[in-house]
Amino acid sequence: MTIQNWDKRLGVYLVMDIGDVNGQSALAIAQAAIAGGVDVIQLREKKAPLHDVIETGRKLCKLCRDHGVLFIVNDRVDVALLLEADGVHVGQDDLPADEARRLVGTDMFIGVSASSMEEAQRALEQGADYLGVGAIYATNSKSDAGDPVTPQLIADIRAITSVPLVGIGGITVDNCTDVMEHGADGVAVISAIVGAPDPKAAAALLKRRIAAYI
Amino acid sequence: MTIQNWDKRLGVYLVMDIGDVNGQSALAIAQAAIAGGVDVIQLREKKAPLHDVIETGRKLCKLCRDHGVLFIVNDRVDVALLLEADGVHVGQDDLPADEARRLVGTDMFIGVSASSMEEAQRALEQGADYLGVGAIYATNSKSDAGDPVTPQLIADIRAITSVPLVGIGGITVDNCTDVMEHGADGVAVISAIVGAPDPKAAAALLKRRIAAYI
Repeated sequence: MTIQNWDKRLGVYLVMDIGDVNGQSALAIAQAAIAGGVDVIQLREKKAPLHDVIETGRKLCKLCRDHGVLFIVNDRVDVALLLEADGVHVGQDDLPADEARRLVGTDMFIGVSASSMEEAQRALEQGADYLGVGAIYATNSKSDAGDPVTPQLIADIRAITSVPLVGIGGITVDNCTDVMEHGADGVAVISAIVGAPDPKAAAALLKRRIAAYI
Repeated sequence: MTIQNWDKRLGVYLVMDIGDVNGQSALAIAQAAIAGGVDVIQLREKKAPLHDVIETGRKLCKLCRDHGVLFIVNDRVDVALLLEADGVHVGQDDLPADEARRLVGTDMFIGVSASSMEEAQRALEQGADYLGVGAIYATNSKSDAGDPVTPQLIADIRAITSVPLVGIGGITVDNCTDVMEHGADGVAVISAIVGAPDPKAAAALLKRRIAAYI
């Protein structure tokens, strides 16, 4: 899948970096997650040298393309362009969506993180194609995620827009249905898949739990 | 001046961020430095939100353009493209020069940081238009600058290439001529101008000291 035939489904949305976890390479984790049914992979790498990000990112992008999984790059529009990603995801301190649009045109979609109605409204005004809403619950995966917003924020934003919404932050198999019931089009997770003993099984279970809502 | 009529002179090369220093705004510091005669301004901002970087960066870029000063953006090729900078400068952990070239084409020049012959050779192979060589002397301005390389590295690199070389790291009015005598085409400074009581006077003195070498 690419943006040209994107069905607006976000489903199970995996956020990951290029590092090994539990002795598994990023590529192996991505393969397992795809086998388990993830719909989207976002590469969010804040620390590694960019030549490593480019090298592993190209492999991840090809893997996603080969399996009909959307591939999104966090923050760096330049890296997204080089990897020919399907989309770029920007946070509140990254490039604003309208500036990012000047670089990617309509070839790539743009997701924006929002942790309040104000941020959501601004992102929509600036042309966001989807919103990442959170942190829904408390999380240890992102040190600057702020206080949890609760799933209610998804319902509030749902009331003002039809763009896809993905909840993020502290989402697990136990609370993912609550996120979907508040109007989300998908759930974004890091540790629930990457940190699981069996990433494929973890992805598959998440997918099954949210299946009724997408 | 832009890359189309760049005379390959680097001269006094100011590296700065968008923050206030000693009660002076970045724009005021840049204005003073330009009045003092700087040839190049590189915007190197690692912390501020990108919407602020874009906003101040556009003003800095216009100021440089109006005064025939080259304007270069550090690290972020996406920001360099948005600001329509003259060039982008990449470190060893940033995008490699050949990847950056795929994004900027020949509209923008690409500088690369090198702290060894190996790094210099690789940067030249990857199409660097100039090299930033250092840290020449010990510096407090860049926490990851590594051990000083001494001005001899400039002479060593000078022997293998004719691309412009700018020394960086701990350069002051007292040691700048030594850097130039080893074959540099310019001296890059942060605190020697930004941290000076009178940035204009500091820039002018540096300019006078290196005038005989360019």
